Amino acid sequence: MEEERQGYELTPAEEINARTKALQMKMDEQGLDLVLILQNVDLFYFTGTVQRGYLCIPARGEPLFFVQKYYERAIAESPVQCVKAKGITTLPGLLREYGMGGKRIGLELDVIPVTSFYRLQDILAGWEIVDISEEIKELRGIKSAFELRQIKHAGAIIDKVFAAARHQIREGMTELALDGFLVSVGRAAGHQGFLRMRGLNQEMMNIFVLSGASACVTSFGDTPLCGHGATPAIAQGSSGKRIMRNEPIVIDYGGGYNGYVTDETRTFVVGRLDDRLMRAHGVARAIIAEVGSSARAGELTTSIYERAAAMAGAEGLGPHFMGHGEGQVTFVGHGIGLEINERPIIGRGGAKSLQAGMVFAFEPKFVFPGQGAVGIEVDYIVREDGLERITQFPLDLVSL
Amino acid sequence: MEEERQGYELTPAEEINARTKALQMKMDEQGLDLVLILQNVDLFYFTGTVQRGYLCIPARGEPLFFVQKYYERAIAESPVQCVKAKGITTLPGLLREYGMGGKRIGLELDVIPVTSFYRLQDILAGWEIVDISEEIKELRGIKSAFELRQIKHAGAIIDKVFAAARHQIREGMTELALDGFLVSVGRAAGHQGFLRMRGLNQEMMNIFVLSGASACVTSFGDTPLCGHGATPAIAQGSSGKRIMRNEPIVIDYGGGYNGYVTDETRTFVVGRLDDRLMRAHGVARAIIAEVGSSARAGELTTSIYERAAAMAGAEGLGPHFMGHGEGQVTFVGHGIGLEINERPIIGRGGAKSLQAGMVFAFEPKFVFPGQGAVGIEVDYIVREDGLERITQFPLDLVSL
Repeated sequence: MEEERQGYELTPAEEINARTKALQMKMDEQGLDLVLILQNVDLFYFTGTVQRGYLCIPARGEPLFFVQKYYERAIAESPVQCVKAKGITTLPGLLREYGMGGKRIGLELDVIPVTSFYRLQDILAGWEIVDISEEIKELRGIKSAFELRQIKHAGAIIDKVFAAARHQIREGMTELALDGFLVSVGRAAGHQGFLRMRGLNQEMMNIFVLSGASACVTSFGDTPLCGHGATPAIAQGSSGKRIMRNEPIVIDYGGGYNGYVTDETRTFVVGRLDDRLMRAHGVARAIIAEVGSSARAGELTTSIYERAAAMAGAEGLGPHFMGHGEGQVTFVGHGIGLEINERPIIGRGGAKSLQAGMVFAFEPKFVFPGQGAVGIEVDYIVREDGLERITQFPLDLVSL
Repeated sequence: MEEERQGYELTPAEEINARTKALQMKMDEQGLDLVLILQNVDLFYFTGTVQRGYLCIPARGEPLFFVQKYYERAIAESPVQCVKAKGITTLPGLLREYGMGGKRIGLELDVIPVTSFYRLQDILAGWEIVDISEEIKELRGIKSAFELRQIKHAGAIIDKVFAAARHQIREGMTELALDGFLVSVGRAAGHQGFLRMRGLNQEMMNIFVLSGASACVTSFGDTPLCGHGATPAIAQGSSGKRIMRNEPIVIDYGGGYNGYVTDETRTFVVGRLDDRLMRAHGVARAIIAEVGSSARAGELTTSIYERAAAMAGAEGLGPHFMGHGEGQVTFVGHGIGLEINERPIIGRGGAKSLQAGMVFAFEPKFVFPGQGAVGIEVDYIVREDGLERITQFPLDLVSL
C-alpha cells in the first residue's frame, strides 16, 4: 500500500503557451484586451501552479503572473513569467508599469463572488468587465496529450481501488468502513486528496459506497445515485448501513492525479443479484458496448443520450433509468478534467458535437426503489475514429 | 473499525426558531424586509437540511423553504415550512402568493457568484439587494448547546484518530499511506467525509501528515504549515515522503460530525527530537497552558495573540512562530463550526472580544526550515469563566 509517487510532471512551457494562445484567439473574437484569472483551477490551467496571485493575459504577447504567496514555489512550478506582488489593489499600478492597457477585461464571473467583484470594480475603474468563463470552459473541454497522460494516471488509481474492493468487501461491513479503506488505498497510491467541482454548492466526495436501498435515497445532488450520507448536513455518499448478502453494492470512485480527475462506477455483490437487477446490469453493459463501440467525434451529445435512453426503454427500464421518480436526472454522461463537471454534458438537451480530445464519464445506471441500484460508469477519451477507455478494470458485475 | 453512527440529531425546531429570530433582529437593524438564503451551509444552519432550494426569511413571521430537490427529504429533516417549488425564476410569484413583500432584501453576497447575481437582479427587480453575510457569520460565531454537542462528537473522532496514529506510525511509511489510514479510521467512526471552508479558492483537506522538512514547505494557503501535497495542482498536505527516525511528524486532523468540524494537531516522533525542537514544543505547550487557563469571555482576540507571540519571542523563537519567512502567518487561532474559517480570528489585527459560546482552534506552531515543525492545535469552547477543551487526547509530544 505504500508507494512513492512524487514523479508527477510539471506543466510544460509549450503546454501553457498553447493554452494561452487559444485563449487569446477567443479574446480576439470577444474584443477583449486583457483577461484576469483568479480561481485556483483556472490558475493551474494557465500557469501550472495554484500559488496565490492574479494572472494577467493580454490580447497579444506574454502573460504575467503576479504572485502573492508563495513566489519561490510559483517560479519553480510555472513557466509563466512571475512577478512578486502585493494584494490585488496594487493591480492598476502593475498594469501601467508592465504596459498592459485596454478597455475590455474578462473575468471568471461564474465563480467570483459578488463582494469580491465589488472590490474588483473599484480596482478596475475605467475597464468594461465581461464574463470569460464560458470561453475558458470551452477551451478546457478539449484535452492535450499532456492532459490525457495525467488522466490516465488518475485512471490507474481507479483500477487499484476497484481491485482492492474485490478483495475487501465483506458481508456485515459498513459502507463507511469500506469507503474509508478504499480512499486509503487510493491515497497511498498518490491520489491528490480531493476532487474539484465548479460552482456554488458543488460539493464532491472521492467515493460513494451505496449498498442495497442506500442507492435509492434521493437527495439534492444532480446525480442519479446520491446516497444517504453520514448526516443530513452532507446528504450524499456512504452511510453507517451494513452491507448485506445478495444486494447490489455500487461503488462510484474518483481518481485524482496531478489535478486531473476521473470518475467510474462498478457494481459488486456478495452472493447473487435477483433476476431483475441482473438483467438491468446487463442492459447497462449493453448500452456501454453500443455507445463505446460506435460514438466518435462529430456525434451529437443528445444522440448518444437518446440511444442510451432508447435501449433502456426497449427493455421496459425507462422509469428506472438514471434514477427513479424525482431522483431521475436527464443526462447519462459528463465531461471530466481538472473539475468533475466539465464539458461535454451527454444529456437530453444542450446538443453539442463530440470533439476529439474531449473526455467524459458515461454512466448508465438503474434505480429500483427500496431494493437497490445497478450500473456502470466508464471514462472515455473522444478520438476521431471512436472512444478510448482510460481504465482496465472489467465492466461486468463483480460477484464475490 | 466498524461502527454504526446513524444516531445524529436532527436540528430541533426550537434551535431553528432561535436562529431565525436572531437573524430577524439583525434584519431590523439593517432595515431589511427579507433575507434569501442560497448557500448549502447557511441553508443547513437555518433549515436543518441541505436539500436544494431557496429559503425566504421575512422580517416578521415564519420562514418558508422553497424546495426544488428533494422535497420528501427536506420535510423529513427540516422543521421549517417547506413548499415544493420549481427554479428560482418562480420566486417573484411565490413571494406574491405567500405575501412576502418589501423593498430591501439581504443575500449572501460573499459566496454568490456574479453570473448568478445577474440572474437574481433580474428576478428581484424592484428590490434593493444588500449583503447579509457579515450578520450571518456573526450569528454563527456563537454556538448553542445543540451545536456544542455536535462539535464534541466531532472531537471524539479526533481522539480516535490520534489514538490510532500512536499505534500506526512506523519509520519508512509514506505520509500519504499514514494519511489514508487515519482518514479511514475517522470515516469508519462516522466522519461526515469532508470539511467546509467558506470562500473562493478555500480548499480544505481532512488531514495533513507532515514529517520533517515537509512541514517547512511554504505554499499558497493561509496556514502556518502547508506541506508539499501530492502535486502542485493541490499544493497542500501529505506527500510521498517517507517518515524518518528522529524527525517531528505533525498531524493536523479535522473531525466532522453532523456538519460541525473540529481541527487539532499533535506532534509525534519515532525516536527522539533534538533539543531545539523539544524546547520549541515545550514553548507551544506552555503557551497553551497559559492561554487555556486564563482566557475567558471578554478578553480581546489580539491580547491572546500578543500573549502567545510574546512567550514565543521571550524564548528567542519569534522568527519560527506560526511559520518562517514568507510562510509566517499573523494569527494563532481561528473559529470553527459548520465551516473551518469562522469567527473569531485570534490574530495580530482585528481585535474583537471573545464571547461565551464561541469555539476556536488555538494552534501555536514553530517551523525550523529544512528540519521540521513542532506544535499543538487544540479546540476550545469559550465560557464566561474560562475555556473548555473538546478532546481528551494529551497535548504532549508523542514519542514512539
